[in-house]
This record gives sequence, structure tokens and C-alpha cells, in this order.
Amino acid sequence: MKLARQQGESGPRVVAVTEAGVADLGPLLQAHQLAADSMRGLIRMWADLAPLVQAEIGRQTEEHRLMPLVEGTLLVPVEGWGRVIGIGLNYSAHAAEGGHALPPAPEMFLRLPSSLADPFGDILLPLASPQLDLEVELAVVIGSGGRSLSREAALASVFGYTVANDVSVRDFQHRTSQWTPGKNFDQTAPVGPWIVTKDEIDDAQALRLRSWIGAAPMQDGTSADMIFAVPELVAAASEFTTLEPGDLILTGTPAGTGSGRKPPRWLLPGEVVTVSVEAIGQLKNKVVLEQKHP
Amino acid sequence: MKLARQQGESGPRVVAVTEAGVADLGPLLQAHQLAADSMRGLIRMWADLAPLVQAEIGRQTEEHRLMPLVEGTLLVPVEGWGRVIGIGLNYSAHAAEGGHALPPAPEMFLRLPSSLADPFGDILLPLASPQLDLEVELAVVIGSGGRSLSREAALASVFGYTVANDVSVRDFQHRTSQWTPGKNFDQTAPVGPWIVTKDEIDDAQALRLRSWIGAAPMQDGTSADMIFAVPELVAAASEFTTLEPGDLILTGTPAGTGSGRKPPRWLLPGEVVTVSVEAIGQLKNKVVLEQKHP
Repeated sequence: MKLARQQGESGPRVVAVTEAGVADLGPLLQAHQLAADSMRGLIRMWADLAPLVQAEIGRQTEEHRLMPLVEGTLLVPVEGWGRVIGIGLNYSAHAAEGGHALPPAPEMFLRLPSSLADPFGDILLPLASPQLDLEVELAVVIGSGGRSLSREAALASVFGYTVANDVSVRDFQHRTSQWTPGKNFDQTAPVGPWIVTKDEIDDAQALRLRSWIGAAPMQDGTSADMIFAVPELVAAASEFTTLEPGDLILTGTPAGTGSGRKPPRWLLPGEVVTVSVEAIGQLKNKVVLEQKHP
Repeated sequence: MKLARQQGESGPRVVAVTEAGVADLGPLLQAHQLAADSMRGLIRMWADLAPLVQAEIGRQTEEHRLMPLVEGTLLVPVEGWGRVIGIGLNYSAHAAEGGHALPPAPEMFLRLPSSLADPFGDILLPLASPQLDLEVELAVVIGSGGRSLSREAALASVFGYTVANDVSVRDFQHRTSQWTPGKNFDQTAPVGPWIVTKDEIDDAQALRLRSWIGAAPMQDGTSADMIFAVPELVAAASEFTTLEPGDLILTGTPAGTGSGRKPPRWLLPGEVVTVSVEAIGQLKNKVVLEQKHP
């Protein structure tokens, strides 16, 4: 199943995405004391709600109540605040292009949810730096979650997958040893367009990842090349924090980023960046110079 | 003014702490469409609510309705999720004891709010590591916030100050280049006991910071020795993220931590850790080995 959040006329809601259109799940969520756009709540109650969601999609299809999918109305697929854990240097060719040694364990950093952007919304180019760089990534959406998970329990705790563009501001990322500033500029990293439940993904470690600036190809890799695979990343995060429904883990990017080129290829205002992960979907975002802050 | 959050019989609430006892601000907040424990809401509406809070304290004092301050019921002074920005290596003697060069800009990392602990609650010693270490810190509470703040605007955007013990798990902190795991174990870093509004602090850069394990002194420093002072830290964080009311910035720790000793002095189960910042208050927490996760 594909689940998204979209801005509707009566506010944001969770929708199920089908070939024929999207089914509004807002009333179903509200009937279960959840906000109409609470993807986190839906994931938390998934064991109970999945059959009802399935029935609701059937009913809306039959009654011709599906709505058209309007890309521009899609939102970050999980609402509000929660864990957004990024993984650095998880593809050896990307580590090499940055001149980094392979890490002995997953290189984990945190993103503030304020640094995320909608699937087809603008990416803000900071006034403070021109070194804006793209990073296509497979993103894991946590389901049951937990602490100190084994590799097997980690995989079982995954709800599904989505796509992220882990857009980074390179000079701010490498100004000090900690990458925090370069990974946390407001509205830089689009996530979406929807969450694909894991039953629809045959093998998360065999997906093609690509990115483009305009029509020009940039990255073309495969999740088979991850140094630490999805279960290892989830397990490593759960070593220190109790993962919860809707938490995101961005699993790292393959080679071909702008910073790895000579000269570097930074994102320019007005350019459109596309990233895609096979079997999941694509994000398409315009780069817009941010406004001067008052 | 001193503002805290405490667990009351009818749930968590914001209270004002006076010499004679604490005044319940829950009803006042609720009358303004805020949750009874919403310190973030109170800070956001401070310009409007400050005179009403002052009047409420006067009324409850006159009517002998102040409640006793019970340390064990105090909570992390800001509720829920928001920015918790840590600063590393911000005192030269502490940087030296870890063998680190002085940073060219503030070394910023993020803490998940799930890694915080109540002012007099337990600190959880992870099962995964014995290398638990204390760090007394002056913590800044953001008031008006904003983006791209000048040094002057940064200082004006501060609401007040509190105390933090930025407890760290050293082997996990230094396993890779990014400190994320070592700074984010569940329930490791106490914050509180209350927020002191900035009008009560003459000079945030002249406060004595101390820590103890049991009765044994560990750290004894002064905020005068910070490499980057409070306005510079707030301004640096606002370079990339829009700071909001109730966000926290932990400003770094002076020398004398356990990891700087030979042999290292880690925190042991059953020990009581005390940290204090002059003119603000102290935190006292027992170290408890965490339960095995199911």
C-alpha cells in the first residue's frame, strides 16, 4: 500500500494512493481519535487499522469517491516532530569521492524536522552559502520500533520505505567536526512522495537510486552497495534511542553528488532537482533562494 | 522569576517558584488556550502573560495557596519535542583534556528530547556501555527566537537560563566521527530544576559551574572561560535553523569530567551526581542501570 499526506481543502489528511486516485483516510483516523493527518498515529495503530483502511479504499473506489493525486499538495509523509536519523558515508564510492575512510560503524547524525521539505515543494538555497548539494536516499519508516533491537527484530520493526533528498550545505557541514549545521538548514531536504509498506518491496537492498539536476543525470547507484544494510542501521539506532512509529532513517547516498565533481556542481536558484528510488517513487523540487530574514 | 514544570495530582503543570512555595500557573495557561504544562506556550506568549503571571503569584501568596516545592516532582522544564542543541569543546581546558584542538566555530550537535531526564530523576546507565560521564552546563532557553540573528538580536532572543548535565557515553560518542549515539542514549541528560528569566542573571558569562559524584568534587569552572559566549552560540544556531520559544542550547562543559582523568572516572550504578550553576540552581540524580529491553 502507498500512504501519503496531502493538503486538502479542509486541512491536511492521510490518503491512500491507488492507480485510480487517492482515498481520503481522514474520517477513518478521526473515528479512532487521531488527527486527520496523523501518519504517526496510523502507523502506531496499523495492526488494528490496516483492514479498515483496505475496506475504506474499496468503498471509495466503488462509490467513485477517489480524488485525483495532485503532486503539489503532497506533504512530508510523517507529521510534526520525531526522530530523523541520517547516515553518512554508507556507500564506499561516495565516501571515496569526499576523501573519507570507510566508517567502522554507521555514521549517524540527526536532522531537525524543520529541515525537511515537501515532496514537490521548494528547496531553500541558504543566503549564507552557495554550496547546496543533492543526495538521493532510500528512507526507512519505523513501524513498531523499540530499543536494543537484534538485526531480525530491527527488520520486523520497519513499517515501510520512502524517498529522501538529503540536501546538504557542504561548507557548513565541514566547518567543524560535527555535520549538524550543514544537515539542518530550514526546508532543505524533501521526503516522500509517499510511504510504501514493506510488503510491496521485494528486496530493499536491490533498488536503483538516481538523481538529476534538470535533465542532467547526477547519481546512479544501487542500495546493494550500502556498507551497512537496513537492518544494521535500524539496530544501530536502537542501541541508544527507543525508536517510535513514524521515525525516519535516511540510509545514505551513492556516489555522484555535486561535491564529488571537479569543479563542484552546486544547486543553483531556479534549477529543478529530481531524485528517484526504484519501486518507491520520485521527488521533484525547485531550488529557490531563501528570503532575507527580517 | 523562576519557572518550572512539575507533576501535580491532576497532571503536569507550569509553576512559578518563590521562596515561600510554588504557584500553580496551570489554570492561567488553560484560560489562554494552552496546556497546563506548556512552558513553550507560556514563553511564546510571555509579552502578554508576564503581568498576569506576576498577579497570579501575588494572589496565591496572599490567599496562602502556594504549594510546597517537592524536588522529586519536577520535570524537564520544557515539554515535548523541540530543538536541543549541544555545544562541544567550548571550554579550552576541557578540549585539552580530551586531546582536541580548539574549534574554529561552535561544534554543534543535536540531542533528541528522549535523551533528557528530569531534574531529580534517575539517569539511566546503558547496558551497552560503562563509559557514562558527567558534564555540568549552563543551558540557554530561547524566547522569541528567529533566523540569522546578529549577536545583539541573539541575546535579545534569549528567555532565560537553566542547568543541564550533558551526560555522555564516551565510547559511543567517539566510535565514529559523529557524536550522535553517545549524546542520545535514552534518559541520560537531566535539565532544570527551573528556568530563571534573564533579568535575574547579571552576567551569564561570570557564573561558577560545579559538579560532584557523591561528595567528591569533579568540575569547578566558570562560564567566563567559554570560547564562544552565549550570544555567539545563539547566533551560530540561528544561521541554519529558525529558533523557537523553548528551544534549548547547552553551552558546553568546563574541565574535570570523568573521561579527562587517569584512569577515567565513569559513573557507577547507585551513585548520585550533582551539578550546579551559580545563580540558577542544581540538579541531583541517581545513576540507575537501565532495564533489559524486552
